[in-house]
Amino acid sequence: MPENTGENMSQLFDRVAIVGAGLLGASLGLALQRTAAARHVVGVGRRQSSVDKALANGSVHEGTLDLAAAVSEADLVVVATPANGVLHAMDAIRASCTTSAIVIDVASTKAAICTHARTLWAAPRRFVGCHPMAGSEKSGPEHADAALYENSVCLIENSPEVDGEARDRVLALWERVGARTVLIDPVQHDDLLAHTSHVPHIVAAAVASTAGREGATLDVIGNGFRDVTRIAAGSPEMWCDISLTNAAAIRSGLVALKSELDRYLAAIDAKDAAMLLELFAAGRDARARVLGE
Amino acid sequence: MPENTGENMSQLFDRVAIVGAGLLGASLGLALQRTAAARHVVGVGRRQSSVDKALANGSVHEGTLDLAAAVSEADLVVVATPANGVLHAMDAIRASCTTSAIVIDVASTKAAICTHARTLWAAPRRFVGCHPMAGSEKSGPEHADAALYENSVCLIENSPEVDGEARDRVLALWERVGARTVLIDPVQHDDLLAHTSHVPHIVAAAVASTAGREGATLDVIGNGFRDVTRIAAGSPEMWCDISLTNAAAIRSGLVALKSELDRYLAAIDAKDAAMLLELFAAGRDARARVLGE
Repeated sequence: MPENTGENMSQLFDRVAIVGAGLLGASLGLALQRTAAARHVVGVGRRQSSVDKALANGSVHEGTLDLAAAVSEADLVVVATPANGVLHAMDAIRASCTTSAIVIDVASTKAAICTHARTLWAAPRRFVGCHPMAGSEKSGPEHADAALYENSVCLIENSPEVDGEARDRVLALWERVGARTVLIDPVQHDDLLAHTSHVPHIVAAAVASTAGREGATLDVIGNGFRDVTRIAAGSPEMWCDISLTNAAAIRSGLVALKSELDRYLAAIDAKDAAMLLELFAAGRDARARVLGE
Repeated sequence: MPENTGENMSQLFDRVAIVGAGLLGASLGLALQRTAAARHVVGVGRRQSSVDKALANGSVHEGTLDLAAAVSEADLVVVATPANGVLHAMDAIRASCTTSAIVIDVASTKAAICTHARTLWAAPRRFVGCHPMAGSEKSGPEHADAALYENSVCLIENSPEVDGEARDRVLALWERVGARTVLIDPVQHDDLLAHTSHVPHIVAAAVASTAGREGATLDVIGNGFRDVTRIAAGSPEMWCDISLTNAAAIRSGLVALKSELDRYLAAIDAKDAAMLLELFAAGRDARARVLGE
């Protein structure tokens, strides 16, 4: 993908308010500037120290703690907090933003947020749920990276009540910063992410805890353990937020996984080599199929 | 670690018989030659085609299908098959090898093999169970790599009935080909590997199968899924072998993992943010502790 340097590229938004000056928000601020997608970027924080960090590395032009004022002047509001923070901020944003403003979020779960948006905005609504699948083990505005979204995938809600013009501008925004966009139903999003991200994360943490309790040490650790548990290094706060805002789909994914583990247990107890071969081959083949390998 | 080129290095063994011409056996053949650890390496296969492949890339000097003849002339016998194959080959090897020959294996599970060795050899025995933690997604002698064991860890049984001189020579052998050696009790080995390798592998396969069944596609796949399921790409035959030869420890590891998953389910059902934070933090911290990070 060619790097977008902003030369000869049209401005997509005039004033952008980024609510939440973490890694995702600050990186988007940098990317919007580098690609000339926005004229002015305002960072809205809850603590002056976060706002100051975002100002310090230039990810926003201006910082404020005054959500209502920043939102009221913006033609794009980006809620860049975890999902629970989005749910809490939406009412205040709805009350302060103009009717023409577009509002998006970047949280990892979508159904609860998009359902709440439906209660706040009449159709056609200009709130568009987004989930850019980008990130890093690092967090905080001080690690902002203008290239964070390059070659990533951004999942965007396809709810019929979303305003078509607003959705097109949101697609253009994410594509400008280097993401490939995919439209998806919010409930289907949460089901799929439960199986491909949320349950795997819980499993990674559970595997690490169990191994730790058994006294495993580096001597007996192969790359398998390292790979399987890598995502367990993520932020407990973020994963707590995801678990609580996608509870039903994660519950169902964990129950399905436990049933699958029971099939291995039954095959091991029965010393059933044919069944074990079938289970391991199915896992290998499913992985290849999902990853298109 | 400096590369051992064999210059000025003493020969450790005269004739080595490597039983099973797969990736591990053929790579050891190459490494023994490169480090001048052995004068002559004979590959023993069950099919002429495997033996021919090992001969073709020079991982053995000589190939044969005659196990008894090859073993009877060797001062080191390496059983380089999966664990079940080791269990089957041990009796014939014991019957054919000289009393001074050292016999080792390279399988991923150790308790069943070392227990069986105890019934075949009187103490002090010159059979020494080994588990070099090296490998690749590739298999077969055609992928043999003289550097496969460099910077790896080789776990070696510390059973009191093992002959001290034999064990010292086995340690020297693995260190010569670049491995760090760690002595370990075979039962403890299997318990720890169940938690750090075998259960994680089953989990990886189960996560992949579940996601595949739910219709996950590349669009919604982040690096988490890729990491967690990476080891599910391994050989079903090898993992079937491991599951059956370490059944008790894997059963207990799977049961412990399911209990851990139940703690997440209970916290999600109770919307207990404090408990979820504690669980995710414990997983993150356990991983860091186990990996010494």
